[in-house]
Amino acid sequence: MAFEILHELRPGGPRLGRLRTGRGAVDTPAFIPVGTNATVKALTPEEVAETGAQMVLANAFHLYLRPGPEVVEQAGGLHAFMGWPGPILTDSGGYQVFSLARMRTIDDDGVTFRSPIDGSAHRLTPEAVIDLQRRLGSDVVMPLDVCLGYPHELAEARAALEQTVRWAERSRAHHLRAGSGVLFGIVQGGFEPALRAEAAQRMAALNFVGYAIGGLSVGEPADRTYALLEGVVAELPPQRPRYLMGVGSVPSLLEGIARGVDLFDCALPTRVARTGIIFTATGRINIRNAAYRHDLQPPDPTCPCKACARTTRAYLRHLFASDEMLGPRLATYHNLFFLGHLVADAREALRAGHYEPWMRGVLARYTTAW
Amino acid sequence: MAFEILHELRPGGPRLGRLRTGRGAVDTPAFIPVGTNATVKALTPEEVAETGAQMVLANAFHLYLRPGPEVVEQAGGLHAFMGWPGPILTDSGGYQVFSLARMRTIDDDGVTFRSPIDGSAHRLTPEAVIDLQRRLGSDVVMPLDVCLGYPHELAEARAALEQTVRWAERSRAHHLRAGSGVLFGIVQGGFEPALRAEAAQRMAALNFVGYAIGGLSVGEPADRTYALLEGVVAELPPQRPRYLMGVGSVPSLLEGIARGVDLFDCALPTRVARTGIIFTATGRINIRNAAYRHDLQPPDPTCPCKACARTTRAYLRHLFASDEMLGPRLATYHNLFFLGHLVADAREALRAGHYEPWMRGVLARYTTAW
Repeated sequence: MAFEILHELRPGGPRLGRLRTGRGAVDTPAFIPVGTNATVKALTPEEVAETGAQMVLANAFHLYLRPGPEVVEQAGGLHAFMGWPGPILTDSGGYQVFSLARMRTIDDDGVTFRSPIDGSAHRLTPEAVIDLQRRLGSDVVMPLDVCLGYPHELAEARAALEQTVRWAERSRAHHLRAGSGVLFGIVQGGFEPALRAEAAQRMAALNFVGYAIGGLSVGEPADRTYALLEGVVAELPPQRPRYLMGVGSVPSLLEGIARGVDLFDCALPTRVARTGIIFTATGRINIRNAAYRHDLQPPDPTCPCKACARTTRAYLRHLFASDEMLGPRLATYHNLFFLGHLVADAREALRAGHYEPWMRGVLARYTTAW
Repeated sequence: MAFEILHELRPGGPRLGRLRTGRGAVDTPAFIPVGTNATVKALTPEEVAETGAQMVLANAFHLYLRPGPEVVEQAGGLHAFMGWPGPILTDSGGYQVFSLARMRTIDDDGVTFRSPIDGSAHRLTPEAVIDLQRRLGSDVVMPLDVCLGYPHELAEARAALEQTVRWAERSRAHHLRAGSGVLFGIVQGGFEPALRAEAAQRMAALNFVGYAIGGLSVGEPADRTYALLEGVVAELPPQRPRYLMGVGSVPSLLEGIARGVDLFDCALPTRVARTGIIFTATGRINIRNAAYRHDLQPPDPTCPCKACARTTRAYLRHLFASDEMLGPRLATYHNLFFLGHLVADAREALRAGHYEPWMRGVLARYTTAW
């Protein structure tokens, strides 16, 4: 993998880049749609590509539990299994072990937990997680990390940081011996600026090819997110790609780009789509609202996507009111297209050297909080 | 509307035809996908057309209750509302009033019932049903009829027949004054051959432009269905299109064509698709079965559809096991394509004059009961 910075406004500021992988390039800043179970919910891979996505995320934890790495491996890896020929980033499962698994116990060597699907017992170690992602055939691999909630105690954050750094060292060593794809480091560290900076410095010292920033945007105020993000970015090697995990609202995406983030993933745009939340240039709307019963405008009147070209708010509202699958499907397509278009416009503004005024204009028109 | 018979093996036998409407032609025999709520579940109109469908069915009863005819009318009618430019056949709601509505009371003038959605009170008369379908902008309109279950008493069947004929006369008169599209007659009559023949004769005497055959395939043995169908077809004007309602399994479709049916609709192929039932050339399979866990064949190895070209049984099984929407979506696409392809092959065999041997070959390979 090679990461090329094509244009950077100033050190630590927004930048235009290109991530080259053996499976194609990703123009950055980029939004990576979430395909937890080896499917971006409701869409075909062709449609995901139409939305402008060049990379998708799949979740190693979920795929480990179902269908199992042996099924994916025998199918020729994730790309063949799900029919997505482009690059795939896999999540290590750290976050899911902490948020979804039952009866989780953590020790220095790894994590033991029960499956949220059937209660069966499992153990993941940093090495097992690298092996798992190799079997899946991931292009961008994440190490096992320890995730904190918000708020947390300082002692907890210190322990999580130390554990994450030790696991990162083991992950790196194991990946050098037996890994595939490229391995990113994950910067955790909670909500204390000093711990975050330390986490970033210690990960930077391990010399990963890219850096994920985890554990932000989990409930803390947005100002705090952005301040912590700035602190982390300042400590990371500037020539390496930066990936802000789990962030994908319109304002946070644009603010993240403004602070030098290259990659984003988030389940929110697709998850809320399935409940009828549609992103528009003037903010999100809930298409189930009675106000749209007779509204013959496209879901987002300014959007050039197929769903907006071929449907109306009245029809989309009817689909949601009738629990028709086509509703979530069209809303998902639109929201991903909306974000794909947004990052493409951001790249255009970066190329032209006026990212910040462009962003201020977009956010002035976008009147909802997310 | 004009119906042209291009090739007929023998009177009352299988035939090749073309139904011309103001919104395009339908090559017959044809399978009409069911789009109850103005959407063929999970698919876009473009995909429905890709499966070979040239006409879709929407349900006047469901659309009356939700979103309401005023919403569809204001959107420019069903075609504009749902984005299907081709011909649309609407069901009168007779069947749904009898099968779905609560607290249904029937009198000579019409039916009073409560909505299965919100319990609100409604009344439908033959005239109101014609008006409703005019507001929806239907191309092929069905009159209100009285549906029987299986089995039934003879007196019930007689009463239902008389009521259906009286309503058919009123529907016809009202359609001449205030209707749009073309109105078909519906032959009911239960499971007594003599009553069925009488129903067909009395509907034929009303000189409809086409004839639907209702109330078959509702639980009675298949032999009885086919014998009754033959009796009805013998009484109908041979130059008019014949539409067998609610029939869409592979054997019953081919047997129906063999008996001179031109049009079929059925929710079964799409409903079972959503539970993981896939039609294949050798019979239906349930993709959830553990046998398909590692099966890297296409869902139906002989099918040229996009879903079969781009996915495997192992992946489709995983999608169903994970409750992923893409599973029902791909299965629906495939099943409709399978039937679209089947009726296209049937038309080819009719054109070549060897329908019956072709059908025997297909059914010999198709080893499941439906």
